[in-house]
Amino acid sequence: SVKRAVIESVAPHMPGHVHFIPGHPIAGTEHSGPRSGFAEIFDNRWTILVSDETTDATALDRLTRYWQALGANVDVMDADHHDLVLAVTSHAPHLIAYTMVGVADDLRRVTDSEVVKYSAAGFRDFTRIAASDPTMWRDVFLTNKDATLEILGRFTEELFALQRAIRTGDGEHLFDYFTRTRAIRRGIIQAGQDTDAPDFGRQGKKP
Amino acid sequence: SVKRAVIESVAPHMPGHVHFIPGHPIAGTEHSGPRSGFAEIFDNRWTILVSDETTDATALDRLTRYWQALGANVDVMDADHHDLVLAVTSHAPHLIAYTMVGVADDLRRVTDSEVVKYSAAGFRDFTRIAASDPTMWRDVFLTNKDATLEILGRFTEELFALQRAIRTGDGEHLFDYFTRTRAIRRGIIQAGQDTDAPDFGRQGKKP
Repeated sequence: SVKRAVIESVAPHMPGHVHFIPGHPIAGTEHSGPRSGFAEIFDNRWTILVSDETTDATALDRLTRYWQALGANVDVMDADHHDLVLAVTSHAPHLIAYTMVGVADDLRRVTDSEVVKYSAAGFRDFTRIAASDPTMWRDVFLTNKDATLEILGRFTEELFALQRAIRTGDGEHLFDYFTRTRAIRRGIIQAGQDTDAPDFGRQGKKP
Repeated sequence: SVKRAVIESVAPHMPGHVHFIPGHPIAGTEHSGPRSGFAEIFDNRWTILVSDETTDATALDRLTRYWQALGANVDVMDADHHDLVLAVTSHAPHLIAYTMVGVADDLRRVTDSEVVKYSAAGFRDFTRIAASDPTMWRDVFLTNKDATLEILGRFTEELFALQRAIRTGDGEHLFDYFTRTRAIRRGIIQAGQDTDAPDFGRQGKKP
């Protein structure tokens, strides 16, 4: 999930005949371990391989075809860009979800039982993200510190602007912001990275 | 979704023979309108009815049985508590999701196409929440201003503490926080308010 720190730790110790190409798939669920795997886990998901000027082109090509054979699409980028992209699409969203769940848990005037009962109103999606492995996530934030803090800085800047719009009653600012964010959702569905099925099939009874 | 403001606007105009009991179900999906309904929409979901000292007990009882007949569980509370509970479980999470999606859309160094491709890493759950109706959400925030701002204040306080832990390398603070939030997730699954199925069945191929 983080590459710059891994490369700095591992690369100097690589024997000369070993090609070291970091990479990982953007796939999987909130569950960990080998029993959480399934045959289609990489289908139409992206795997990022990290290269620099020292990367062997033949080895990179072989590794690309390996991931493609597993069903994945492959992108190649440098370590810093990888860490920034993951900070946006994964690390910052996880920290924010953890924070919101912690706040709800902590409130004295709303009980945990109430939070659980009324979680279908949006909150439960945050709890799924915030159920991921604590050890892994601690290490992600400690090793991708700079990119995560950069994104969180932008996040709080925008959040403060929206809070001010709420406080001053600036409905136009709110409406414009909420309209803009719908385009990204459409892009994700068109690219097959999520389904448009409402509520992810949680609605109604199980078959 | 907000009750205090509705009561202040509507209650004074009620004829004497009409019982005015605000309420709404915590159910549904990110889609709006009559075509987004389905038969089991209220099964094992909670409906909140709002009462005060003027509420007619017989009318409240009749309305409770109406919602129960539709499959819902019913809770009764006062308007201020309702608005605070919804600020925690719905309004603040929605604003936070909108904010994060807006930030990702706005970044110059990461393209929208990259955000879409790598959204499976956590971000796409935020985009679903941030795809809800902009007009409704503008009005929610403008009418539930106080409770939303209170929760957002607590949220930024916690977020700053976690950011500081990342910056100073305080892994223990991060690990403890991430461990605590798992208990609420277990409560939600035990209460039948979400499924433990990984990824909400988005994994793999469609049947």
